Amino acid sequence: MAGKFYGVGVGPGDPELMTLKAKRVLEEVDIICTPKSAVGKESIALSIVEEVLGGDLEIKELIFPMTHNQDKLNKFWDEATAEIKEELEQEKDVAFITIGDPLLYSTYIYVLRRLEKNTDIEIETVPGINSYSACSAAMNRPLAEKNETVAIIPAAYDYDNLDEILANFDNTVLMKVARNFDDIVAKLDKVGITENSFYASRCGREDEFITTDLKSLCGEDLDYLSMVITKQSIEEE
Amino acid sequence: MAGKFYGVGVGPGDPELMTLKAKRVLEEVDIICTPKSAVGKESIALSIVEEVLGGDLEIKELIFPMTHNQDKLNKFWDEATAEIKEELEQEKDVAFITIGDPLLYSTYIYVLRRLEKNTDIEIETVPGINSYSACSAAMNRPLAEKNETVAIIPAAYDYDNLDEILANFDNTVLMKVARNFDDIVAKLDKVGITENSFYASRCGREDEFITTDLKSLCGEDLDYLSMVITKQSIEEE
Repeated sequence: MAGKFYGVGVGPGDPELMTLKAKRVLEEVDIICTPKSAVGKESIALSIVEEVLGGDLEIKELIFPMTHNQDKLNKFWDEATAEIKEELEQEKDVAFITIGDPLLYSTYIYVLRRLEKNTDIEIETVPGINSYSACSAAMNRPLAEKNETVAIIPAAYDYDNLDEILANFDNTVLMKVARNFDDIVAKLDKVGITENSFYASRCGREDEFITTDLKSLCGEDLDYLSMVITKQSIEEE
Repeated sequence: MAGKFYGVGVGPGDPELMTLKAKRVLEEVDIICTPKSAVGKESIALSIVEEVLGGDLEIKELIFPMTHNQDKLNKFWDEATAEIKEELEQEKDVAFITIGDPLLYSTYIYVLRRLEKNTDIEIETVPGINSYSACSAAMNRPLAEKNETVAIIPAAYDYDNLDEILANFDNTVLMKVARNFDDIVAKLDKVGITENSFYASRCGREDEFITTDLKSLCGEDLDYLSMVITKQSIEEE
């Protein structure tokens, strides 16, 4: 099998935050695979790539529906992997693109794990800028300094000990907060860090939205690509 | 004051992991400031920039000695800030470069905070790829997936509750492990996750070193730019 497989992070949203390596690899490969939740749905990863590379690309859309049904997910991941393997077997180099970093909460992980079982396939992961780095930069606000700790929590899920983490970590990144937002704000209030927190969605995109007034968002229908970054105390010098 | 100040992350080590935006900004600014621990010392950030942009750049070296004496540090940071302000006042655009991400454990933070007191200075931070994203990519190993949590610990410092964090988080990134390495391995052993961990230093540089055999490094003199990434359990599907 001569084709090489790349997992390529295209960054958090701003096309300029793609790396030089991601750009080179995407220019060199034969096929770019882009994950989509359904046919016809927007792919932010693909829109980033098209803004940087132009529109004349060989694209393969792979469907990964939004579901928590593991059997259903496994079936779609198996099918996507089979489609990629078919291209690799035809000696084509294939890139699988994701927003942010491919190895942090990305669908790429499930394709990677399946392809790794084929020990003859060469695989390279190209890291990308995380959304929380872009959000911190947009605010010019340190994510962590000196001996400060950081907790990263995928907040679309429930956690028994979230109160404890919020109280004990100097900084907490809560990713995908839309579903649990009101509950999260209640927990931040309990620790007394709501005023030190900010909410950001679609950082670096045209519809970027950032606010430190979290309470104003309670009860609202929030964007799927949104996060809250908290801090125990704002440093004064 | 017409000059603009940029904090620019140039990535974890591999020059190709610089972003398109970092490259553009560094091409456009008048002066590139690079932090150094002493005159004559290596600056990895500068070597990355020179590999991408070539050597014909206007560079200003700013000295930030390695010390925990806060008064001494404040003095050097004040001096560096004054030097940057002087350039900005002459209507020059200035970039301050750092390896990794400028807002995560970087000297940039102290310069940023000082410059922010001058409300007339325009400041923009350009995020960079973190070292732990590059190390995970080099291993093709997920940093976190699904509902998994991540703790980031600057391990050059001591922590009372590190045992607890290692036991409770699905994944832990221990940054700058050189000073406390043997103690860290003892703690990983206690939780039973030494075999699920890997050590990486200078990822993406010519002298990159990665191993899953942490025990072989105990008692050794380790690189300052080194980390350990742990996992509670290696996923099998």
